[in-house]
Amino acid sequence: MDPAQEAQNREAFRQAVINTLERRLFYIPSFKIYRGVAGLYDYGPPGCAVKSNVLSFWRQHFVLEENMLEVDCPCVTPEVVLKASGHVDKFTDLMVKDEKTGTCYRADHLLKDFCKDKLERDPNLPAEKAAEFKHVLAVLDDLSAEELGAKIKDYGITAPDTRNPLSAPYPFNLMFQTSIGPSGISPGYMRPETAQGIFVNFKDLYYYNGNKLPFAAAQIGQAFRNEISPRQGLLRVREFTLAEIEHFVDPEDKSHPKFPDVANLEFLMFPREDQVSGRSARRIRIGEAVVQGIVNNETLGYFIGRVYLFLTHLGIDKDRLRFRQHLANEMAHYAADCWDAEIECSYGWIECVGIADRSAYDLRAHTDKSGVPLVAHEKFPEPREVEKLIITPAKKELGLAFKGNQKMVVEALEAMGEKEAMEMKATLESKGEAEFHVCTLDRAVTINKNMVSISKEMKKEHQRVFTPSVIEPSFGIGRIIYCLYEHSFNTRPSRDGDEQMNFFSFPPIVAPIKCTVFPLVQNQQYEEVARQIARSLTAYGISYKIDITGTSIGKRYARTDELGVPFAITVDSTSSVTIRERDSKQQIRVNVDEVASVIKEVTDGPSTWGDVLWKYPTHSS
Amino acid sequence: MDPAQEAQNREAFRQAVINTLERRLFYIPSFKIYRGVAGLYDYGPPGCAVKSNVLSFWRQHFVLEENMLEVDCPCVTPEVVLKASGHVDKFTDLMVKDEKTGTCYRADHLLKDFCKDKLERDPNLPAEKAAEFKHVLAVLDDLSAEELGAKIKDYGITAPDTRNPLSAPYPFNLMFQTSIGPSGISPGYMRPETAQGIFVNFKDLYYYNGNKLPFAAAQIGQAFRNEISPRQGLLRVREFTLAEIEHFVDPEDKSHPKFPDVANLEFLMFPREDQVSGRSARRIRIGEAVVQGIVNNETLGYFIGRVYLFLTHLGIDKDRLRFRQHLANEMAHYAADCWDAEIECSYGWIECVGIADRSAYDLRAHTDKSGVPLVAHEKFPEPREVEKLIITPAKKELGLAFKGNQKMVVEALEAMGEKEAMEMKATLESKGEAEFHVCTLDRAVTINKNMVSISKEMKKEHQRVFTPSVIEPSFGIGRIIYCLYEHSFNTRPSRDGDEQMNFFSFPPIVAPIKCTVFPLVQNQQYEEVARQIARSLTAYGISYKIDITGTSIGKRYARTDELGVPFAITVDSTSSVTIRERDSKQQIRVNVDEVASVIKEVTDGPSTWGDVLWKYPTHSS
Repeated sequence: MDPAQEAQNREAFRQAVINTLERRLFYIPSFKIYRGVAGLYDYGPPGCAVKSNVLSFWRQHFVLEENMLEVDCPCVTPEVVLKASGHVDKFTDLMVKDEKTGTCYRADHLLKDFCKDKLERDPNLPAEKAAEFKHVLAVLDDLSAEELGAKIKDYGITAPDTRNPLSAPYPFNLMFQTSIGPSGISPGYMRPETAQGIFVNFKDLYYYNGNKLPFAAAQIGQAFRNEISPRQGLLRVREFTLAEIEHFVDPEDKSHPKFPDVANLEFLMFPREDQVSGRSARRIRIGEAVVQGIVNNETLGYFIGRVYLFLTHLGIDKDRLRFRQHLANEMAHYAADCWDAEIECSYGWIECVGIADRSAYDLRAHTDKSGVPLVAHEKFPEPREVEKLIITPAKKELGLAFKGNQKMVVEALEAMGEKEAMEMKATLESKGEAEFHVCTLDRAVTINKNMVSISKEMKKEHQRVFTPSVIEPSFGIGRIIYCLYEHSFNTRPSRDGDEQMNFFSFPPIVAPIKCTVFPLVQNQQYEEVARQIARSLTAYGISYKIDITGTSIGKRYARTDELGVPFAITVDSTSSVTIRERDSKQQIRVNVDEVASVIKEVTDGPSTWGDVLWKYPTHSS
Repeated sequence: MDPAQEAQNREAFRQAVINTLERRLFYIPSFKIYRGVAGLYDYGPPGCAVKSNVLSFWRQHFVLEENMLEVDCPCVTPEVVLKASGHVDKFTDLMVKDEKTGTCYRADHLLKDFCKDKLERDPNLPAEKAAEFKHVLAVLDDLSAEELGAKIKDYGITAPDTRNPLSAPYPFNLMFQTSIGPSGISPGYMRPETAQGIFVNFKDLYYYNGNKLPFAAAQIGQAFRNEISPRQGLLRVREFTLAEIEHFVDPEDKSHPKFPDVANLEFLMFPREDQVSGRSARRIRIGEAVVQGIVNNETLGYFIGRVYLFLTHLGIDKDRLRFRQHLANEMAHYAADCWDAEIECSYGWIECVGIADRSAYDLRAHTDKSGVPLVAHEKFPEPREVEKLIITPAKKELGLAFKGNQKMVVEALEAMGEKEAMEMKATLESKGEAEFHVCTLDRAVTINKNMVSISKEMKKEHQRVFTPSVIEPSFGIGRIIYCLYEHSFNTRPSRDGDEQMNFFSFPPIVAPIKCTVFPLVQNQQYEEVARQIARSLTAYGISYKIDITGTSIGKRYARTDELGVPFAITVDSTSSVTIRERDSKQQIRVNVDEVASVIKEVTDGPSTWGDVLWKYPTHSS
């Protein structure tokens, strides 16, 4: 199929899904009667139920299964915390303004749209130009404000709505700012992620865990990003639910005792090298990926495997799920490795879960800012003689040489590993100076021998004190749910064949309502049976919808299929009733007093529809 | 006991509870390593589990049982919504500032503290003065800014920390303000309650419910109040979880089909009249309270009964729970009736759930502001001839007479009921003018006959269009949980009798962890059995803690009792194990392969400890 046709099909499919979702109140644009607010959505009744089911399963699959320490911290966060984490200074997007109306746009979006448009719509584009636009699209995320501004100027890009000229790009901080308390002197922000609440509690959580590593803490909660101009509907929103895990490990031992449980899973992976060399994602066994060093360590690999099981169990299509490794330029400088679980939907491949080895960065940042050491201890059975690397930066000399950048250089020197430090020592001794790359400055500086002293000393130690590494799987719940909607959406002809009917093939654990109860015809006896069944469903904790309208049974099935309800109970006698399964439309006949327990079995486990199908007589209508 | 001693005991008890809660990480002052922020708390692992259990039970007891429509709306709310609801103009507390340091205080708190202090500590207080201070305390909530300021001046009250003079009181809006989008021209607030998200969706929810009344919508979520100076620890916080129900009914029929289910419940109620006449709360059957008109209607009564069941099922002591009716001056002018579920704890009687009949106020407010009619329809089987009251305010005349208040007067005239309108018509005809009380102006105005025309006309109507009334049970989840902690906290002597041990007697549904697993002695075989039991507990979805330290069994029981874990499994053989119940310390002996299902039965139902106690051999250690 040609790309234009494909794009059109994708768009039509998306519209069909979104229409159904909106019509059946899976979601509602927030504050709709006031014409809404871009990037804010409500979960209506079925959407809210799906969300709550996804979160329950998340708790069961991660928190309970791994005995994680779940916490719940406020959204309102004082500035000092987000200063330490880097969000106050760096959590920005580059923005341009319409110089006449003041309307704001994301600078990279405008450039991206311009290049894509040229590539897609200009049949006479010279090959050279096409190559240039493709290159711009490839490096878009790496462009500085100046570079972006220059391109926008070069290409003569103007404001999309008015064609007015645009300002130069400048950073806009994406956090919602507020003020804590009445004085107006304590700035605060709505948290952009839940992770910081866990990091600042590391000391208490480590103690709660009996001062033992590894352990994981988890948090589910709202996060906020004041997007410049939200697009992509439900995927890029200004308030969303995150579910985050921070797994703390000894940086010298990132093995995982349960890794063998997932090692044989095989799924689509897209390692960095394959991306760079233009290959496609391929199926790799996760055990193999760790052995080959494609994935940095067992713990990271374990979580990748668990995330795969989580998503596919919810109903994500395993052929439209891949784990993509971050490229070197995408990854934070402190990260050891990072993989995104990407799900393919009509918008393309969407990042839904990030699984990053963030090394010791976050705990170190809060240790520095708060003065409270967020460290772990390993007691030795007996004291050890150890050779210790001692790096002593000469702060005064460095201050004279690097002025405002002194702190960054000092930190970089102190953070050197043994190998790097001993090489520098040798170079300084032989040449008197050495080139030294400072990540936080993004350039190399020249260090001379008066600026740092490096030595090794023997010391008696009773324990090892270290900053744990953290491995962070972070789940965008709303994005997962949206992709689940697309993957579960189907159409099939109606009974009489003259209409296309929509249905969501949610697995029972996800389905917003587990079953519907219909009296076949309007009749007091049947309605009484329906109510009796409803009461026993409630007692079992099963959500249901009762429909006593006189509408034809076919229409009532269609309504309930469109909500993704997996089972429909039709009352057509006072002693036994039929249960119909949504996807297969198969029906079985079950006694009235057994029906609730059968539904319980096939929705909460341990049985599947296949299991009960042979146990009860089938029914054909 | 004398009041001072009683106060001291209460304080000591509270300290014991709070110490245990904080030591065992039920909660943690948020951002503690940065010295915290007043009024913000984290739920640590056991607290987070308790919260999640309380919310699950809330969903089961209310949402599932009543087939409510649960929604989930954002916290970030545009100004227009909260302007309509009245929060932008009226959601304020009166504040005073230390004139030198700028420190802020709640004006009523300072006055309250001053009066209480005088009453409690000044033995020579003349009876007349004592009566005056008591009166001030009684009317504290009704004082205007001017009156509060005058009292503060009269009594010479100064800033508590510095003794500096104080500013006059002025209103401070309690909402956290922010800005939506990058332009800085769209003010927004963090919602102070979840209810507004439901009201603005009324039209869609009514449609989802098949355009039928009554129905209820529900929402669980964060709410925010930027308290001036938070006190009372976990009870008055700046961010908290609310669970709210908005039950929409026909104002002409507030009966409830399930009212007979609760009518025979009897509990402590504190009607308005009893409060005013100085009587105490008394036990009343809720059925009786509705019949006697103490409670305004069946639906309100039904929810009061359901709230009673909810709270006592969680473990709230029924003798320290009462339903107190709002006094006339406490109630919003539009409310038909309002009851608070108050729970007694060391801070006194604390409002934990508000159950209000808010009449049509909220839907009308959003109808007016948005222009979208939030109404319900009742179709008549055949058209009816009805006499309709027609009130036509003469806006121009009213504008000339009342200037900026014109709108309030117009609205009040239009909102007149039939009786009031016909009386006004008569008065206008006989005297040419009439006194008219305008609630929103809080005073009477004079209306003359040119300002309004009132008449009755016969009309043919096909349907009745009306604004539904809303009955709102609103739950402060954090407050309920704190009271639950106090009501569940107990001490008893240790085994050897030389120590007092704390334990929380949570019912299994609330307990943060359902059971612990201990090998009796450190031994590989027992540890393997313990792990096998742990795996089957996970499969059943039961949270557990495994403790393989060599600590004495008595100490391990004490640790787990202090977390409120109801059951402890001790592995003392490879074939059978003991289960110990926390409160009775009774033990039974159960086969290894049965133990998980027994724990499941007694934690999730249907059995109780009493049921299993006679089924299995008891064990005495």
